[in-house]
Amino acid sequence: MASRLVAIESADDPRIAEFRDIRERDLTGRQNRFIAEGTVVLRMLAEASTSGSFTTEKVLLLRNRVDGVAPILERLPIEVPVYVAEAEVLDRIVGFHLHRGVLALGRREVAEVDLVDRLSERSLVLVGCGISNHDNAGSMFRNAAAFKADAIFLDETSCDPLYRKALRVSVGSVLSVPYQRQGTGLDILTRLAANGFAIWTLSPRGETDIRAIPPADKMALVVGTEGEGLPPVVLERFNSARIPQSEGLDSLNVAMATGIALFAMASAVKRI
Amino acid sequence: MASRLVAIESADDPRIAEFRDIRERDLTGRQNRFIAEGTVVLRMLAEASTSGSFTTEKVLLLRNRVDGVAPILERLPIEVPVYVAEAEVLDRIVGFHLHRGVLALGRREVAEVDLVDRLSERSLVLVGCGISNHDNAGSMFRNAAAFKADAIFLDETSCDPLYRKALRVSVGSVLSVPYQRQGTGLDILTRLAANGFAIWTLSPRGETDIRAIPPADKMALVVGTEGEGLPPVVLERFNSARIPQSEGLDSLNVAMATGIALFAMASAVKRI
Repeated sequence: MASRLVAIESADDPRIAEFRDIRERDLTGRQNRFIAEGTVVLRMLAEASTSGSFTTEKVLLLRNRVDGVAPILERLPIEVPVYVAEAEVLDRIVGFHLHRGVLALGRREVAEVDLVDRLSERSLVLVGCGISNHDNAGSMFRNAAAFKADAIFLDETSCDPLYRKALRVSVGSVLSVPYQRQGTGLDILTRLAANGFAIWTLSPRGETDIRAIPPADKMALVVGTEGEGLPPVVLERFNSARIPQSEGLDSLNVAMATGIALFAMASAVKRI
Repeated sequence: MASRLVAIESADDPRIAEFRDIRERDLTGRQNRFIAEGTVVLRMLAEASTSGSFTTEKVLLLRNRVDGVAPILERLPIEVPVYVAEAEVLDRIVGFHLHRGVLALGRREVAEVDLVDRLSERSLVLVGCGISNHDNAGSMFRNAAAFKADAIFLDETSCDPLYRKALRVSVGSVLSVPYQRQGTGLDILTRLAANGFAIWTLSPRGETDIRAIPPADKMALVVGTEGEGLPPVVLERFNSARIPQSEGLDSLNVAMATGIALFAMASAVKRI
């Protein structure tokens, strides 16, 4: 193990350039590259890397975290460099005090086959439209993983779930739940409907109680942006469901609503 | 309306001292006084003030927000002062850029009757032990309001739900759902059990599927601290329930788990 570690003595070292000033870089986007932060997410990245959907390009650790993540490092291909720095250097690299001390640079491999075509005859999927908040995006992936959804479709206006904070909130589930982010919400739903999916939009004014949705082999739950909800063109065209709750309150936030609705739908189709 | 407004020209004005450096003050606690932030929370405070459980002591507004909250101000007793400041003064008062521009100082009236004694023969309550995160505390209140729980009991190690951020995340539900924060978790549960409550602790290793809990007139859902979960002394003594989910994942966070479990229990007793 020790022979694999490469000490970084200067924040200017070009080998760790991708980790520099993380917060600013996060905002500009990285084109399928992303920062995995923390032990749990690193473990998920190492696992996802064995399936070919993701690659671990390099790891950067606080020296005193090396022992804790040694079992994960052993699972990474030997050519993946593992850089190690003392706290003072690491903080200068990333631009703030990095409490967790575990970072990796990952790359998402672009799938050549459309995700809809990879779904089986029994599928439960989640569709997000205009999900702009990274916490909510991360939480949606975590819920999808917990309640055994097969895939997530995000429209092109939704945020990148590989953004560091979304990834962290998802507890790494962005790396385990297959997803696609492209097209409009209507494009996605039209495609899913043409492939036999029963589409259920979630809205406080939905017609069907979420607990009464008839089970089907292929089901899609659709949730909209915080604030505005789903666009009328989507709400008009598909079935709508609601989570029963007290009247006169603001509707639950999209992360919570997604968790409860997926729990109900996964129960209906006996996934859980 | 205009006659009621009192212009504040200086951040040092003693009349608005309680709003000064809000963030620092939040951390030291205010002994049943609290800051309500935003239009929705102000509305909830005005409503709660009519019931006698809370009092609105004063309001501080950004000048351009006055029209928007005028209907709420009309509901407040005429003796409640409404201070108004321009953005520059307001930001200097609170110590940061206050985007929302709507603040009030509220006071919680201490109830003389124990909350357990005020519960009816059909009650669904939530108990939180060691809930230290303000977002989670706020979210628990929001869930309780959504799914018609009658009360929340927090143990003495849980955080103050009147803290500004918890109140905001709860969308003001801390002002509408009756609660008590005192004693140990075991004290609270022993008292509830003696009053005929079926106690269900929530844990990833709970014995009963949350969907299979038998309905009862009096039910209590118990959730524990993030990270450690409920203490063994509590888990051993009462019934335990689990939310079915994928194995090998971290359990859902306490806010999400509470939402799903309350949804299931409220369904079981036909509250929703």
